[in-house]
Amino acid sequence: MEPVVGIIMGSDSDLNIMGEAAKQLKAFDIPFEIDICSAHRSPARASEYARTAAQRGLKCIIAGAGGAAHLAGVTAAETVLPVIGVPVDSSPLSGFDSLLATVQMPGGVPVGTMGVGKSGAVNAAIFAAQILATSDAALADRLAGYKRSLADKIRTKSAHVKATFSV
Amino acid sequence: MEPVVGIIMGSDSDLNIMGEAAKQLKAFDIPFEIDICSAHRSPARASEYARTAAQRGLKCIIAGAGGAAHLAGVTAAETVLPVIGVPVDSSPLSGFDSLLATVQMPGGVPVGTMGVGKSGAVNAAIFAAQILATSDAALADRLAGYKRSLADKIRTKSAHVKATFSV
Amino acid sequence: MEPVVGIIMGSDSDLNIMGEAAKQLKAFDIPFEIDICSAHRSPARASEYARTAAQRGLKCIIAGAGGAAHLAGVTAAETVLPVIGVPVDSSPLSGFDSLLATVQMPGGVPVGTMGVGKSGAVNAAIFAAQILATSDAALADRLAGYKRSLADKIRTKSAHVKATFSV
Amino acid sequence: MEPVVGIIMGSDSDLNIMGEAAKQLKAFDIPFEIDICSAHRSPARASEYARTAAQRGLKCIIAGAGGAAHLAGVTAAETVLPVIGVPVDSSPLSGFDSLLATVQMPGGVPVGTMGVGKSGAVNAAIFAAQILATSDAALADRLAGYKRSLADKIRTKSAHVKATFSV
Amino acid sequence: MEPVVGIIMGSDSDLNIMGEAAKQLKAFDIPFEIDICSAHRSPARASEYARTAAQRGLKCIIAGAGGAAHLAGVTAAETVLPVIGVPVDSSPLSGFDSLLATVQMPGGVPVGTMGVGKSGAVNAAIFAAQILATSDAALADRLAGYKRSLADKIRTKSAHVKATFSV
Amino acid sequence: MEPVVGIIMGSDSDLNIMGEAAKQLKAFDIPFEIDICSAHRSPARASEYARTAAQRGLKCIIAGAGGAAHLAGVTAAETVLPVIGVPVDSSPLSGFDSLLATVQMPGGVPVGTMGVGKSGAVNAAIFAAQILATSDAALADRLAGYKRSLADKIRTKSAHVKATFSV
Amino acid sequence: MEPVVGIIMGSDSDLNIMGEAAKQLKAFDIPFEIDICSAHRSPARASEYARTAAQRGLKCIIAGAGGAAHLAGVTAAETVLPVIGVPVDSSPLSGFDSLLATVQMPGGVPVGTMGVGKSGAVNAAIFAAQILATSDAALADRLAGYKRSLADKIRTKSAHVKATFSV
Amino acid sequence: MEPVVGIIMGSDSDLNIMGEAAKQLKAFDIPFEIDICSAHRSPARASEYARTAAQRGLKCIIAGAGGAAHLAGVTAAETVLPVIGVPVDSSPLSGFDSLLATVQMPGGVPVGTMGVGKSGAVNAAIFAAQILATSDAALADRLAGYKRSLADKIRTKSAHVKATFSV
Repeated sequence: MEPVVGIIMGSDSDLNIMGEAAKQLKAFDIPFEIDICSAHRSPARASEYARTAAQRGLKCIIAGAGGAAHLAGVTAAETVLPVIGVPVDSSPLSGFDSLLATVQMPGGVPVGTMGVGKSGAVNAAIFAAQILATSDAALADRLAGYKRSLADKIRTKSAHVKATFSV
Repeated sequence: MEPVVGIIMGSDSDLNIMGEAAKQLKAFDIPFEIDICSAHRSPARASEYARTAAQRGLKCIIAGAGGAAHLAGVTAAETVLPVIGVPVDSSPLSGFDSLLATVQMPGGVPVGTMGVGKSGAVNAAIFAAQILATSDAALADRLAGYKRSLADKIRTKSAHVKATFSV
Repeated sequence: MEPVVGIIMGSDSDLNIMGEAAKQLKAFDIPFEIDICSAHRSPARASEYARTAAQRGLKCIIAGAGGAAHLAGVTAAETVLPVIGVPVDSSPLSGFDSLLATVQMPGGVPVGTMGVGKSGAVNAAIFAAQILATSDAALADRLAGYKRSLADKIRTKSAHVKATFSV
Repeated sequence: MEPVVGIIMGSDSDLNIMGEAAKQLKAFDIPFEIDICSAHRSPARASEYARTAAQRGLKCIIAGAGGAAHLAGVTAAETVLPVIGVPVDSSPLSGFDSLLATVQMPGGVPVGTMGVGKSGAVNAAIFAAQILATSDAALADRLAGYKRSLADKIRTKSAHVKATFSV
Repeated sequence: MEPVVGIIMGSDSDLNIMGEAAKQLKAFDIPFEIDICSAHRSPARASEYARTAAQRGLKCIIAGAGGAAHLAGVTAAETVLPVIGVPVDSSPLSGFDSLLATVQMPGGVPVGTMGVGKSGAVNAAIFAAQILATSDAALADRLAGYKRSLADKIRTKSAHVKATFSV
Repeated sequence: MEPVVGIIMGSDSDLNIMGEAAKQLKAFDIPFEIDICSAHRSPARASEYARTAAQRGLKCIIAGAGGAAHLAGVTAAETVLPVIGVPVDSSPLSGFDSLLATVQMPGGVPVGTMGVGKSGAVNAAIFAAQILATSDAALADRLAGYKRSLADKIRTKSAHVKATFSV
Repeated sequence: MEPVVGIIMGSDSDLNIMGEAAKQLKAFDIPFEIDICSAHRSPARASEYARTAAQRGLKCIIAGAGGAAHLAGVTAAETVLPVIGVPVDSSPLSGFDSLLATVQMPGGVPVGTMGVGKSGAVNAAIFAAQILATSDAALADRLAGYKRSLADKIRTKSAHVKATFSV
Repeated sequence: MEPVVGIIMGSDSDLNIMGEAAKQLKAFDIPFEIDICSAHRSPARASEYARTAAQRGLKCIIAGAGGAAHLAGVTAAETVLPVIGVPVDSSPLSGFDSLLATVQMPGGVPVGTMGVGKSGAVNAAIFAAQILATSDAALADRLAGYKRSLADKIRTKSAHVKATFSV
C-alpha cells in the first residue's frame, strides 16, 4: 500500500522517540514512510519533501525535532497538508526549547503540536489516524476500539492497584 | 449547511481570542458552530458535546481555554475526532500554564496544540481546514490559494519596507 | 471501616508517588480507597467516580497525575467534596507542566494543590487528615501529635549534625 | 456569629486580590475574620495568629501573599487546621515566585494551594466552604447550588455566543 | 555603495524593533539592504534570499523574528555567511519562545544570537560591524571610537547622577 | 572560640550541600555553629534560634533550604543580623523553587541570596567572611589571600589546558 | 562624613529603581556615594571602582543592573568587600535574566543577591546597614527600631482592614 | 601559524564542552589558542586577555562559561573583536542561567550567543570560521564543503532509517 503518512525527523538520534510513532501507525495498519530530513542540515531536501508530499499521496506529515526545532514549521511552510509536530527533549533545556520552537507558529502556518517526547510521538500517530478517519469510517471504528482498549486497560490496572492496597 | 467544525471555549472572556478562529473559518466558507462549554463549570455539557460531536456531523473540534486549560483534553477524551487546542493567555502566568495544560497530553489521547493567543486561534481554523482538505480537493485548492496570498502579502510589505529605508 | 478518603491517579506509573499518600493515611488510621482512573483514557469512569464519591461516604479526594494533569480538575468539576491535587513529575518537563495544569483552576472550581512528587503525596494525606479533623477532635489530637513528632525528629537530627561537626 | 474562617494577607496591597475571598465567603454566609499579618514584618503576630486559630474557633485559614510568599507556610507550621494558600502576583516575576514559594512545602506541612491572583482568591473561599461542608450538610447543599449556578451561567453565555455568531 | 549586510525580518510588525539595526548600521556608514521575508509564509523567498546572499555581495545577514522564530535558522541553513539572530518579543510568552527558537541550533548550523528586543537589534548591527571589521581596519577604528563613546556617555551620566544625589 | 557564624538548614538531607559552607568557614578559621532547624517542622525552634542569635554572639547566619525554602526568610524576620540564604535543589523543580522562595523577599526584610547548590554554600561562607572582615583587618587580609589563590589556580589550570591542546 | 556604602548601577535608566536604595540609606543616616558604572560599556571604570573601594573607605557595595546583569559579579571579582546585587527588570524577560545573571556566581566569588526591582533595592540598603551594624551597636539599635516599625505598620494596617470588612 | 581564534573558558570543568570547539577549529585548519580565564576568579587576566587580543592577531574570541556566565560579556566589553558566547550547563538550573547571562547583553556590547552545551561549542567554532571566511575565500569554500557534508550525512542516515523500518 502507498504510504499516507510521512514521519520525518531532524536527526537519527531522534529515532528512539519517533520510532514510537511508527509502531503506533503499524498498530493501526496505516501505511507510512519514514525519513531523516533536517531543516538546518539538509534544507533543500526538507523543502522538497514537503513540497512533493501531497503529490506523492501523503495525507499528513509527522515531524519530530529537538532544540530550535524548526522541522515541523519548515514543512508546514511548504505544504497545505496538516503537519503534526513532536518536540524532542534532546538538549540540556529539557524540551522547553523544542516545545516553544514547534508550537509558537505565526498566524497562517499552523503546526498541530504534541507533548514532549515519547508520549508525544505515540500521540502524533493517533492524531494522524484521527485525521485520516475523518474520511475513513473503518479507521474511525478502529480508533473507537483503541479508545475502548485504553479504558479497559485502566480497569485492569484499577483491579491490580486495589488488590495491592487492600487490607 | 451543517457545521463540520465545532468551536468551543471555556469562558466568554475567551471570545475575543476564539472569535478569530470563527472569522477564519468563515473566510474559508467552512460551516461551523460555536459554543461555550466549560470543562470545570459545566462538565456534563462538555462531555456530552464531545460524545455527540461525530454523530452531529462534526469532523473536528477547536477548543480554547486559559489557565489549567482542560477543555481540549477533556474533549479529546470523549471523541475520536481530531481536537485542536488553543491555549489562551488569560492568567497572570502569560499562557505558560494554558500551553502546558493543553499540549502535555498522555499517550493515547492527543490534542493538536496551536500557539498561545490570537495567532493560535487563527491557526486552529486553518489547521481544521487542512484536516478537512485531506478529503476535499476544492478546499485543498482554496488553502493553496490562501498560502499563496500569504507569500503575496510578504512581497507587498517587502516593497513597502524597502521604500521606507531607501536612501 | 468505610473509606472516607479516595486516592485516585491517572496511571499505574504514578503509584510509586501516590502510594506515599496511602501509607500516610494508614499511619493516621484513616480508612481510604485507592483507584486508577484517567481523566483522558477513562473519562466516564473518572466522572462517575467523582459524581458518586459523596454518596459513597467519601469526605475528600486526593488526585495525582502527571503532564497535562487534568484528573484533579475533572474530579473537582463533578463534586463539592474538597479535591486535593498532587502534581506528578513524569514528563520531561520536570513537573512544571503537572503543577500548572493542576493549580491554575478557573474561579468556581478549586483544587487544593500540593507540591510536585513524593512530598506532595505525603502532604495530600496530611491535608486530608486536617480536613477530616475539622469535625473529628480525636484526629485533630493525632495530627497535633504528628506535628510534635516532626519537631522531635528535627531535635534528634540537630544533635546528630552538631556531633558530626563538633571540633 | 463567630468566624470559622480566617483570611490573612502579607500586605494591604494584597487586599484587592484577597477581598475576593471575603466576598465569596459572604455569598456563602460563612462568618470570617480578616487580618494583615506578615510572615516577615510581623512574625510574632503571624505565629500567634496561627497558634491560637483553632482555640478561637477557626476551622481553616486562607493566607495570601506575593513574592517569596511564606505566610501560608508559616501559618501551616503552627496549626493543624487546613491552610489554603493564595499566590499573589505582586512582583515583576508574574506570580511564578509566589506560586512556587507557596506550593512546594516539605513533607509534613501541607498548604492547599490555589491558582495565582483573583481566581485563586475566589477559589480559596469555595475550598474553605467545601472543607466546612464535610461536616455541614446545609452548606454542602448551598455548594451544590452554587455548582449548578456555574453550569447555568455557562448555558446563558452559550446562548449569547451562539446568537452573536449566527448567520 | 553595494550593501554588505542584509537585514531581514519575518513580519512588518518586527520593523519597530529591527529598524534599530538599520539605524545603527547607518551610524557606522555600512551599506545595507532591508527586507521582509518570512520563513513560514514565504519560504521560497527566504530560501532564495539566503542562497544568493553571498553572490550578491553580502558579508553577513541579520535576521529578526518572533514566536517560533525560524528565520535566522532557515537562513543559516542556506548560506555560509554568518547569520545574526534577533529574537523579537511579539507573542504572549515575552520572547522566551523566540530566544529559544533562535539560539538552540543543532551542531553544524550556528546562529549568533543577540538579546531579545531593541537592544538585541542594535547589537546585531554592532556585531555585524565587528565581523566586517575583522578585514577592515578603518571600520575597526570606528568601532573603537564607538566603544570609547559608550564609556564617555557613562562618565557624563555619572556626573549627572552624582549631582542629583549630592547633599 | 565562640561561634560568630551560625549555619542552619531545613533538613539533614541538606547536609551534603551545607557542609561545604562549614568546610569553607573552617578554612578561614572562623568559629561557627551548625544546626538543623526547620521553618515548617520546628517553627518555634527556628524562631528562637533567630531571636537569640545576636545575644549568643553570632554576627551573621547562613540558612539553606530546598523547595518552598522559607528558612532564610523566617530567620531574617526575627533578627537584624545579616542572613545569607542558600537555595538547595532538592525538589523535582531543580532549585527554581528554592531560589525564588529565598530571594524574592518583601521590602524591609532582606536575605542575601547565593546561587543554587554547592557553589552557593561555599559562597555563603565566603560572604560571611566578607561581612566579618568589614571590622576585622586580619580576616580581610586572609580573604585577599584567598582571592589571590583563586587567580593562581586559574593560572595553573591555564598551563595545563594549554599543554593538553598544544600541537 | 565619608561614604561607607557605594551604590553603582549599569545605566541611568536603573536610577528609578536604585534611587530607593539611596533613600533608604539616607533614612538610616548612612553616608553613601552613588555612581553609574557599566560592566560592559565602561569596564575599566567598573574595575577601578571596585579595586579602590576598600581604600576609599567603603565597607560594602550595592550594584544594580538589568539583562545579563554582570555589574555585581564583576565588582565582586575585584574586591573582598561584600557586594550586594539588585536584579533590575529592564528587559522583556521580566527580570528572570538579571536575577539568574546576578545570583548564580561561581564558587569563590559571592554576590549577596536581593529580589528583583524596587523591593530589592530597598532591601539592599537594609542589608548594607545590617552588615555595618555587625560592628556598630548604635546602627544595630536603629535597625531594631526599624524592624519594630515594620511590625507597627502591619498593626495599623490590620486595624484598617478589619474596619473595612467589619459588618 | 599564529592563532586567529582564541578559545577561553571560565573553569577547567568546562573543558569537556569547550574542547568540541577546539576539535572543530582543527578540522577547519584554523590556528587557535586555548586558555582558562575566569571573569570572576581572575578578572585582571580576563581583562588583559581581551584587551590585547586584537594586537596578538586574534580575529575573534570564543568564550564559554556556566552559571552567571559573564566571561563572554566581560571579554566583549574590552575588545571590538566579535565575541562568540557558549552557555555551559554546569549548574542545577540546566543552562537557563548561563544562556540568559550570556545572551541578554545591553545595547552597545554584543555577544553572538550559541546554544547551550556541546552543540553550542561546535557551532562556536563554525561561526568563527564563517566570520574569518568573510575575508578568506578558501575558507569559505571549505565551509561550503562542510555544509554539503552535513547534507550528505543526512542522506546516509536517511537510507539507514528507511531500511530499518522497511517492511
